[in-house]
Amino acid sequence: MGPLLKEIRHNPLLWLLIFVPVVLVAHKLKPEAHTLLFVLSVLAIVPLAALLSHATESVAAKTGDAVGGLLNATLGNLTELVIALTALQAGQYTLVKASIAGAIVTNTLFMLGASFLLGGLKHHMQEYNRGSARLQAGLLFLATIAMLVPSAVSEAVFFAGSASTENLSVSLAVVLIATYGLGLLFSLKTHREFFGSAEHGDSGEAPWPLGLALATLAGVTVLVALVSEVFVESVQQAAITFGMTPAFVGFIVVALVGGAAEMASAFAGARKNRLDLSVGIALGSASQIALFVAPVLVLLSYVIGPQPMDLEFWPGAVVMMLIATMTAALVTNSGRSAWFIGVLVLTVYLIFAMTLYLLPPRLQ
Amino acid sequence: MGPLLKEIRHNPLLWLLIFVPVVLVAHKLKPEAHTLLFVLSVLAIVPLAALLSHATESVAAKTGDAVGGLLNATLGNLTELVIALTALQAGQYTLVKASIAGAIVTNTLFMLGASFLLGGLKHHMQEYNRGSARLQAGLLFLATIAMLVPSAVSEAVFFAGSASTENLSVSLAVVLIATYGLGLLFSLKTHREFFGSAEHGDSGEAPWPLGLALATLAGVTVLVALVSEVFVESVQQAAITFGMTPAFVGFIVVALVGGAAEMASAFAGARKNRLDLSVGIALGSASQIALFVAPVLVLLSYVIGPQPMDLEFWPGAVVMMLIATMTAALVTNSGRSAWFIGVLVLTVYLIFAMTLYLLPPRLQ
Amino acid sequence: MGPLLKEIRHNPLLWLLIFVPVVLVAHKLKPEAHTLLFVLSVLAIVPLAALLSHATESVAAKTGDAVGGLLNATLGNLTELVIALTALQAGQYTLVKASIAGAIVTNTLFMLGASFLLGGLKHHMQEYNRGSARLQAGLLFLATIAMLVPSAVSEAVFFAGSASTENLSVSLAVVLIATYGLGLLFSLKTHREFFGSAEHGDSGEAPWPLGLALATLAGVTVLVALVSEVFVESVQQAAITFGMTPAFVGFIVVALVGGAAEMASAFAGARKNRLDLSVGIALGSASQIALFVAPVLVLLSYVIGPQPMDLEFWPGAVVMMLIATMTAALVTNSGRSAWFIGVLVLTVYLIFAMTLYLLPPRLQ
Repeated sequence: MGPLLKEIRHNPLLWLLIFVPVVLVAHKLKPEAHTLLFVLSVLAIVPLAALLSHATESVAAKTGDAVGGLLNATLGNLTELVIALTALQAGQYTLVKASIAGAIVTNTLFMLGASFLLGGLKHHMQEYNRGSARLQAGLLFLATIAMLVPSAVSEAVFFAGSASTENLSVSLAVVLIATYGLGLLFSLKTHREFFGSAEHGDSGEAPWPLGLALATLAGVTVLVALVSEVFVESVQQAAITFGMTPAFVGFIVVALVGGAAEMASAFAGARKNRLDLSVGIALGSASQIALFVAPVLVLLSYVIGPQPMDLEFWPGAVVMMLIATMTAALVTNSGRSAWFIGVLVLTVYLIFAMTLYLLPPRLQ
Repeated sequence: MGPLLKEIRHNPLLWLLIFVPVVLVAHKLKPEAHTLLFVLSVLAIVPLAALLSHATESVAAKTGDAVGGLLNATLGNLTELVIALTALQAGQYTLVKASIAGAIVTNTLFMLGASFLLGGLKHHMQEYNRGSARLQAGLLFLATIAMLVPSAVSEAVFFAGSASTENLSVSLAVVLIATYGLGLLFSLKTHREFFGSAEHGDSGEAPWPLGLALATLAGVTVLVALVSEVFVESVQQAAITFGMTPAFVGFIVVALVGGAAEMASAFAGARKNRLDLSVGIALGSASQIALFVAPVLVLLSYVIGPQPMDLEFWPGAVVMMLIATMTAALVTNSGRSAWFIGVLVLTVYLIFAMTLYLLPPRLQ
Repeated sequence: MGPLLKEIRHNPLLWLLIFVPVVLVAHKLKPEAHTLLFVLSVLAIVPLAALLSHATESVAAKTGDAVGGLLNATLGNLTELVIALTALQAGQYTLVKASIAGAIVTNTLFMLGASFLLGGLKHHMQEYNRGSARLQAGLLFLATIAMLVPSAVSEAVFFAGSASTENLSVSLAVVLIATYGLGLLFSLKTHREFFGSAEHGDSGEAPWPLGLALATLAGVTVLVALVSEVFVESVQQAAITFGMTPAFVGFIVVALVGGAAEMASAFAGARKNRLDLSVGIALGSASQIALFVAPVLVLLSYVIGPQPMDLEFWPGAVVMMLIATMTAALVTNSGRSAWFIGVLVLTVYLIFAMTLYLLPPRLQ
């Protein structure tokens, strides 16, 4: 426990851990105080996500490069996965889909754009390995196509429960996971020399002992699951209180909360002129959600959900994912960055957020 | 007045100035001769636009690089702005929007493509600074997204007068103008070394004295406003006479008339193997209309129009702007040009023009 | 006849020629055995296509570079053209359009992706001339725009027989053919130095004498026409037997059959680390179908079809062509390839195929 306590003393973000017991107790005492529970659960999830990410990296560091990369690549978005699973179990499919699409768009635009801007305000011009950015942009493009093509090509109205739609969603999920696996094989094994500067997550902290890391991983996952339940229950009611639309909450708020820990790492990397790290976290996390988290949720919905979930998103979400992917492909094409590139990318995100706030779409 | 008269003697284009009094007198005597008035007003606007552009550059040359660049960047499309303001005041919103979208597409495709073709017919292979082209293409992409996202994401039918739509349009207009301002800061100040060959508008002519330039600027703006009024009044009737649809007139004819002076400079630059100048005028002018003229018109519509104008364009216009932006991004990516690149870009424009002529859309 | 017989002995693919008489006899004896006739006609078309392609190359090799390139570029897709003409004459416009769109998508994605994958499994990293790939991608982009813009811009429902639609389709067809011709002038004449490694089709075999080549060209074209008639008649019925939708048959099956001979050359080139050849065949063939075969069919439909055919494709087909073009532009941008690039491109094709199989669109 020594390194864990030292880490908590060292890192002010982790002081927020105090809100974990607070929110669980508050939920027992006042289950209908939605706004309070929403704020408390957000404050509790952020430090848990940071701990989870640190524990994953520690396990990864102990198990060698290939297995470690694999672990990082599969558990990197554990927080998002647990939140989505909780919403899936509660049958809140709209929230699940909005949070998946929102996480992809937020990582691609907000995390990447803010990294460029924060880095660019300190450094006149920054360079990074564009080979890696291209691979991630290609994977994202593929995932967007998998979500776009079924409705665009068939013009069929998707019925939840229609046999062909379900078959297609499951097949697409399997194809996406397989492609993700082959992408890992490519970047971690056969062509690793092109994806240099794999200093992922080496944020200056020493890795924990393996036992502690594994115990933290298990314990914190359970805590995230408990807090997520409160979060998912309260978020929609709280949104109404704050005057926000459900689309805005799912797309923007949940995505920012779920990705807070990774954002902290990405922004710190950008300030230290290690933009490779920031771009890798932002695009890597986005493509992981698109090609791994989303299809896994589709497959798991057959086991734990009240009914199967398909891979079809509302058209506006697909448009936003497509624009986000194209923006990422355009701006990372040159492998160089300056502050205004960050402004451009953030402005695209701002336009999305403003539209969702002022002209809420009717979600299916 | 000496330099002004010398300029007029020197430049045959300016002899067309004789049509300025002719059209104003003709409008008084025969206000219903629409076809005649349309032809006369076109002949009068072209030399006025050339004078306006020369006066702006003269003021810019006197005031130093930063302020001069700013002036050029804000007054460069004064003709288009005055024509659009006249149409706005007359409540012809369809014409305003068609002329904005048309000016963006015409500058991006026709001006750029014809520059590539004319330059390529004389020079085997031409090179230009692609950094600058990329910035402008990025800004254009952003503006297209701002016009596309609201209707694509919300699936809401836009109602003129709906409060949220108006709020969103005004917010988007402010965001676009702010981004345009930050883009100027970036290219004229913090990272100006990447945007070399800023010989904008140095067309071999000596700049005028400041007093003369300012007086010309003021006087010619008034004349453009007067002639625009005749032009806007007559253009729709004349179109019917010529068998053209309103969409074709707004998109193609008005855009070609408004941009005639800039086209002359861009084409001359391409023939002299100064393609940096041509690309800068074409894409710079397009992004200025998208990020400055259009949002300014939205904001001014609250002051001078019979009712507020929103930023929503008909879907076909958005598709054409999106294709034009993507085409510009693709062809300027390499920083090199040959005649066939010009043919490709012009063909895209030709396809648009043919479609608008033969299959006119119903404008809102 | 000597070289022809030697070629047949040498090349096991040509042993399938035995199915040419078999299918023609079977069609006379049992005209209603659709499934059998379908299988036999596929087995007969593949070797005929190979012979046709070899004869075209032999004529091209004898007539010098410029004329030879021109011949190769106009007759390279003779098989696809003959099949489509047969379907056109039978009034099966849906099949014609599906096979055109399918051939473009199959060449761009399946042929290119499988070349990348097969080459990448043998060679760690392969390089090719990206100038040529860019030209072809640009031409493909143009053709897709010509098919997309009319319906996107005008929002008009296209009526077969409406005068404006017909005018527009004919005008677009002429524009596409003219652009294709200018593209040949550019790549074969004025700027040929940029399109090096023009070892097109030099598959290690000696060219035939001119007389034999011309006779083979004529004779085999007649045979392809005869077999195509059986193929077109039987394909739809056979599809139902195999549980395939008409869209899947036109898009995937016909395209794979028609392009089998070219695929053999492209894959062989990739294995021999001559990726220039593979990329040239794949993208060159796709752009030739889009800019030459498709518009020629539109023009010929006025002469031989029961009624004129227009250039409008169903929206899903346009979406797939657009995605295929964008994918090709993205992956060929760097001029380098490895096995995973092939996986990405093939996966896009797989997603299309799965969607067409499971969620068939209603074709017009």
